[in-house]
Amino acid sequence: MATRHHDPTTDSAAGAVTEDPLADYLRAQATEFLRALRLHRETGAGVGGSRESVDAARALRRSARRISGSLHTFQPLLDTDWSEDMRPELAWVSGTLAMEHAHAARLERLLAALHRLSGSGALPDRPAVVGRAGGAADRGNLTVGAAKAGALLERQLTLARTRAHSTALQALGSSRFHAVADKVALLASEVPLTRPAASGDLLPLAAAAQERLTDAVAALPLVTAGSPYNAEALVHGLSPDTTAPHPQDAPWHQVRLLLRLHRYAREVVLGEDADGDARLLTAGQALDRHRDASEAAAAAAQAARTPRIAPATAYALGVLHADQRHEVEAARYAFQRCWEKESVGTP
Amino acid sequence: MATRHHDPTTDSAAGAVTEDPLADYLRAQATEFLRALRLHRETGAGVGGSRESVDAARALRRSARRISGSLHTFQPLLDTDWSEDMRPELAWVSGTLAMEHAHAARLERLLAALHRLSGSGALPDRPAVVGRAGGAADRGNLTVGAAKAGALLERQLTLARTRAHSTALQALGSSRFHAVADKVALLASEVPLTRPAASGDLLPLAAAAQERLTDAVAALPLVTAGSPYNAEALVHGLSPDTTAPHPQDAPWHQVRLLLRLHRYAREVVLGEDADGDARLLTAGQALDRHRDASEAAAAAAQAARTPRIAPATAYALGVLHADQRHEVEAARYAFQRCWEKESVGTP
Repeated sequence: MATRHHDPTTDSAAGAVTEDPLADYLRAQATEFLRALRLHRETGAGVGGSRESVDAARALRRSARRISGSLHTFQPLLDTDWSEDMRPELAWVSGTLAMEHAHAARLERLLAALHRLSGSGALPDRPAVVGRAGGAADRGNLTVGAAKAGALLERQLTLARTRAHSTALQALGSSRFHAVADKVALLASEVPLTRPAASGDLLPLAAAAQERLTDAVAALPLVTAGSPYNAEALVHGLSPDTTAPHPQDAPWHQVRLLLRLHRYAREVVLGEDADGDARLLTAGQALDRHRDASEAAAAAAQAARTPRIAPATAYALGVLHADQRHEVEAARYAFQRCWEKESVGTP
Repeated sequence: MATRHHDPTTDSAAGAVTEDPLADYLRAQATEFLRALRLHRETGAGVGGSRESVDAARALRRSARRISGSLHTFQPLLDTDWSEDMRPELAWVSGTLAMEHAHAARLERLLAALHRLSGSGALPDRPAVVGRAGGAADRGNLTVGAAKAGALLERQLTLARTRAHSTALQALGSSRFHAVADKVALLASEVPLTRPAASGDLLPLAAAAQERLTDAVAALPLVTAGSPYNAEALVHGLSPDTTAPHPQDAPWHQVRLLLRLHRYAREVVLGEDADGDARLLTAGQALDRHRDASEAAAAAAQAARTPRIAPATAYALGVLHADQRHEVEAARYAFQRCWEKESVGTP
C-alpha cells in the first residue's frame, strides 16, 4: 500500500498521517516520550518532586513501555537489528524510572495497611504517593509495635527510594540515555519498517499477542483463585526457603505483562482511544494490585529480618505480611471474576 | 392431654413413653447424661485420656447443654424455681468440662496452621485432638520462627489444658457436681412440668426461640460478610485496645448460641432424629469454626506478649494471628452463603 502524499499542514514529526497504523502509533508514542522528557527536565528533579515532575516521569515510562511492547509484538514488520537494539534500552529506561515510584507506592500501601490494622481508619491527611513519607505524627493511633514497624518500613523504603531517585537521575544524564533519546527522536520522524504495514499485516500479530495472553491465563490456577478464602496465597508464608519474589506469584506477574502487551497491540490496531474495554482495564488493575501486594508483603518480610528489632515490631510486620498476602489472594479472586465475566461476554 | 397407661415393657426411667415430647426429651437427655457419667468414671481420667473417656466427656457436655437449653426455651412449662436452680449448674458442668477439650483443639488448630504456613503440607501423623501434643520431631520442616512459635504455643496451651483437666476432675468430685447429678437422676424419672406439655404448648415457645435466632442473624453485618475478602476481620488486628474476645466477634458468638437453642428446640418438637436439616448443621459448623478461629487468633496474640521472645517467634505469631483472623472472615462468609441459601429454601 502506497503512502499518501503529505498534507503540508500535518507534515511534522508529531502529526504525520499515513495509512500505516503501526508507524502512526510508534511516531505518536515517540513524540509523547520526547514531550514528557522535556517536561521532566523543566519541572525539576528532587526526591518525590512536584506533581508535574511525577506526571512527566509517568508519561515517560508509559510511552517507553508502549514503544517497547509494540516493537515486541510487531517485530516481523520492523527492522530486526534496530528493534533488537532498541527494546532492552527502552526496558532499562522504564524500569529505572519505575523504581522510585514503586518504593514510594509500596511505603504508602504498607503505612495505609498498618493504619487499617490499627483500627485508626484512613491515613491522616497527606499527599498521595508524591510528597514526603509521613512522620511520627501520623502514628498517634498505632500500638508500639505498629508504630515501630511503620517507622522501620519508612526508613528502609525511603532509603531505597532515595537511592532509586539518584539512580534515575544518573541514568537520565548518562550517554546511554542520550543515545536512547536520540533513537526515539529519530523514531518520531521515521519508523524503520521492513515494509509498510497495513491492517492485514498487523491483525495476525496482534492476534498472536492475544493468544499468548489467553494461553498464560489458561495455565493459571483460576478454579482455586475463584473460590474465596482458599488460603493459597499465604501457604509458604513461613516457609524456610521463601525468597522474594514469591514463586507462586510469577505466573500472575507474567500474565500482567502479557495483558499489557495485548492492550498495546489493541491500541495499535484499533487506535489508542479505542482502548475502552473496561473489563480489560479491570483485569489489569487486579494484576497491578496483585503485583503491588506481593511486593509489599515481601518488603514487610524483609523488614522483619532486620537485626535487633523488638518482638512487638516483628509481630506487627508478621500481621502486615499476612495481610498483604491476603491482598494477593483477593486480587487473584478479583481477576478471576473479571476474566470469567469477559469470557462469557466474548462468544 | 392425659398421659397414657404405662406399658410395663417400656416403663423404666430411660424408656417411659408419654405423649409429652418435652418430658420425653428431658428424660432421654437425663438418662444419656447419667450413662455418659458412668462411662466417664469407668474409662479413667488422665490428661487427654482414652478415646472412650473423651467421648464420654463429650456426651456429658452434649446432654448437659441440651437439658439446659430446653429448660431455657420451654421455661414457662416447667417449675420455675427448679429450672432457675438447674440451668446455671448445668452450664457450669458443660463449661468446665469443655475447657480441656478447647485448649487441646486450639493447640491442634494452631500447629496445623503453622505447618500449612510453612508449606510443609499436612501435619505429621498424630492422633487428632486426643493424645499428647506433638514434640520437636513434628517441627522438622518449620523455620526457626515457626518452630519456636509452635513450641511456645505448645507450652502455653498444654499448661492451660493440664490446668483445665485438674479443674474438671475437681469439679466432677465436688459436692456441687454430685448435687447436679442427683437432680439429673431425678429428672430421668420425673420431669417437673407445671402442666403436661403437648405440641400446642411447645410450638409457640420453639417458634420464639427461632425468632430470637432470626432477629440476631438479621443484626449481623451479612452484606459485608457475603462480600469475599472484605478484610473486616483483621481491622483492629493491631489495635492498641485489643482485648480477647474480639468485640466484633461477639454478635456472631451470640448467634452461635441461639442457633444451638433453635436446634435443641427442633429436637424437642420434631424428635431428636428429626434434626437432619443439613443447612442448619452447616451454619452451626461455620459458627463453630468462627469461634475456634477467633479464640486461636487471640491465643496467638497472647503468646506474642510473652516477655523476651525472639523477633522471629513474634513474626511467626503475627502471621499466625492474621491467618486465623482471616479464618474468622472465611467462616462468616461461609455462614452468610449457607444462611442465604436457607432463606431462599424457606418460603
